[in-house]
Amino acid sequence: MKIIVDAFGGDNAPLEILKGCAKAVAELDMDILLTGREEEIRRVAKENEISLNRMQIIDVPDVITMEEHAGEIMKSKSNSSMAEALRRLAAGEGDACISAGNSGALVVGATLIVKRIKGIKRIAFAPVMPKKEGCFMLIDCGANVDCKADMLRQFGVMGSIYMQKVMQINNPRVALANIGTEDHKGGDLQHEAFALLKKSGLNFIGNIEARDIPLDAGDVIVADGFTGNSILKTYEGVAILLMGKLKEIFTKNTLNKLAAAVVLKDIKALQKTMDYNEYGGAPLMGCAKPVFKAHGSAKAKTFYNALRLLKSYVSAGVVDEIASSVESYNKNTAKESGDEDAQE
Amino acid sequence: MKIIVDAFGGDNAPLEILKGCAKAVAELDMDILLTGREEEIRRVAKENEISLNRMQIIDVPDVITMEEHAGEIMKSKSNSSMAEALRRLAAGEGDACISAGNSGALVVGATLIVKRIKGIKRIAFAPVMPKKEGCFMLIDCGANVDCKADMLRQFGVMGSIYMQKVMQINNPRVALANIGTEDHKGGDLQHEAFALLKKSGLNFIGNIEARDIPLDAGDVIVADGFTGNSILKTYEGVAILLMGKLKEIFTKNTLNKLAAAVVLKDIKALQKTMDYNEYGGAPLMGCAKPVFKAHGSAKAKTFYNALRLLKSYVSAGVVDEIASSVESYNKNTAKESGDEDAQE
Repeated sequence: MKIIVDAFGGDNAPLEILKGCAKAVAELDMDILLTGREEEIRRVAKENEISLNRMQIIDVPDVITMEEHAGEIMKSKSNSSMAEALRRLAAGEGDACISAGNSGALVVGATLIVKRIKGIKRIAFAPVMPKKEGCFMLIDCGANVDCKADMLRQFGVMGSIYMQKVMQINNPRVALANIGTEDHKGGDLQHEAFALLKKSGLNFIGNIEARDIPLDAGDVIVADGFTGNSILKTYEGVAILLMGKLKEIFTKNTLNKLAAAVVLKDIKALQKTMDYNEYGGAPLMGCAKPVFKAHGSAKAKTFYNALRLLKSYVSAGVVDEIASSVESYNKNTAKESGDEDAQE
Repeated sequence: MKIIVDAFGGDNAPLEILKGCAKAVAELDMDILLTGREEEIRRVAKENEISLNRMQIIDVPDVITMEEHAGEIMKSKSNSSMAEALRRLAAGEGDACISAGNSGALVVGATLIVKRIKGIKRIAFAPVMPKKEGCFMLIDCGANVDCKADMLRQFGVMGSIYMQKVMQINNPRVALANIGTEDHKGGDLQHEAFALLKKSGLNFIGNIEARDIPLDAGDVIVADGFTGNSILKTYEGVAILLMGKLKEIFTKNTLNKLAAAVVLKDIKALQKTMDYNEYGGAPLMGCAKPVFKAHGSAKAKTFYNALRLLKSYVSAGVVDEIASSVESYNKNTAKESGDEDAQE
C-alpha cells in the first residue's frame, strides 16, 4: 500500500508529519510518497534522525496556509504540497492521500482534483468523535453549508459504511441531528431527510437532540454542514473550557495540587478520550479515492493514528462499497419511478 | 410589582414553584398571581408550611405537560394553568409572567395570547448561559427553525438591550454564530444577517465560531433557532458527559475519593457555574410583555433566581426600550427608502 502525504500541511509540518510517517512505515507496512520542499524534508529528517526508508519525495515549492481561502488551491496555490498530493492520488500513484493542512482547501481540492464517487452529490467532512463509550461519526461538519435532503441521505449511507468497515461497528445506528426527537421536528430539510432516511434501508433510529450526542445518540449523526460544524465546534469549545477550569482548580493551592497528583493519570486519560484527534482525523467521505484530513495541530502520534485508520479505509474497500451502494440505489429509484433517465 | 406564575409548570410543580415564590415575596417585595389547581396549591402549601402571603390564586383545572404538542395550548389545553397565566398577563393583571412548563407551548401561547412588540417579527427563546467568565445570551435557541436575516438583526437588538439593562453589561458585543470568523462565511442567511447587523448601530463584532462561544466570543450570540438550539443542547450534553466522567474518576477507588474530598467544593462550584439554570431562566424576547421560561427541572432556588431576574426585566423597561428601538429603526428605514409604507 502506498499513501501520499502532504508533508507541509498543519502547524507542525514537516517535523511531526515525518515522525508519524516513519513510525507508520516501520509498524504498518506501507510505502509513502511525500509532497513538499525536498531540501527541507531531507534536512529536517537528518537533523532529527528520522529514517526516510520507503519514502519517496516529490519536490513542490508552495504551501497553502491555514488562513488562505480554500479556492486558492486551484489558483495561486496550485503548486502547493497539498494540490500535488491530490494530483498524484488522482493519477493513481498511491492508494490514498492525507493532509493536516487547510480543511476547506482539502475539500475543494479533493472535489475538483480527485473527484467524487459516481452518483455522490457532495463530499462530506466527517470526523469520528468521542462519546461516553466509544465513538461516532458526525457527517457533514462543514464541507456543505447548504444541503438538500438527498445529500443527507447519502451522508447516512457513507457514514454507515465507514463506521461498519473501518470502525468495526456492527449495523451502525444512523440518526438525524434535530431540535427534538419527535418525527415532525425541524424544518423542511429535516422533514425531507427524515423521510428519505426512513426508507433508506439503513439502521435509521430517527431524530436526535444535540444534547444526547455526547452521551450516545447514535453511531452516525447526520447533519447539514452548518449544523454539524456548530455541533463539532461547540463540542470542542466546551471541552476546552471545562478542562481549563479543571486545571485552575487543580493548581489553585498546595492541597489541591496534592489531590491533582492522585488523579492526574485518570484526568489525562479523560482528556485523551475527549480529544477527537486521538481518532486520527476525518475522512472526506464521497471522494473517489480515500482522502483523509488530520487535525491541523496533529503531532507524530496523531498523524500515525490517522495513517493507521487510512490503511483500514483503503483495505476495507469503503470507496467501492459506497460506489456500489449508490449505483444500486439509483437503479432502484429509476425502476420505481419507471424512468431510466433518473439514474445518475 | 405583580408577577403571574404558572404554578403547574415543570417537573417539580407545584411544590418547588411555591417555595420559590414564597422566598421571592419575602425578599424581593413582589405580589404573585398563581394559576393552577387551587385546592392542590393550598394543600401543598399547608403540608409544607409555605406562606401564601401576597399570593392570589386563580383556579384552573388543566395542565399542559412537557410531552404535549405546543399548539395544544390554544386547543385542548386552553384551560391550562399556562394559558390562563398568559391570558391574565395580556389582560393587564400583572407585570410579567413565568412558567417552568413546556417551552414550545409557552412560545406559542406568548405569541398568540400576549402578542409581539409592534414591529418585532418573531419571539425568540433566549437563555443566558455561562462562559469562561460571566455569561452571554444565545438568541434564538429554538423558537424559530426558519429565520430570515432581518429576524436575526432584531435578535441582536433585543439581546443587546437585555444584556445591557438586565445583566448590566456595558455596550454588549453582538456576534453572529457562523462556521468561521471571516466576513464571507456561511450561507445566504448569514451573509444577509451579517450585512444588516453591520449597519445596525449595535456593537457588532462579526462572525464567530461555536468553538469560541464558551471561552468568550461575545455577550450576545445571534443564531437562527435551529443552530442556536444545536449549540445550546451540545453545550449541555458535553458538560453532562464531562461531569459524569469526572464523577467516575472521583469514585474509582479510595485514594481518588480522598482526592475528591479535597477539591469537592471547587468542583461543585464549577458544576454550578456551568449550569445555566443558575441564571434562572430564559426570557422570551420580543413578547409585548415580559414572559420568562424557567428550566423544566427548576427547584425553588432556581425559580427564585428567575423571579429576581424577571423583576429586573420589568423594572429596566426592556420591552419599552425594544419597542422604541424598533419604531425608530423602521422610521429610518422608511425614510431611507423614501417609502412611508415600509413602516410596520
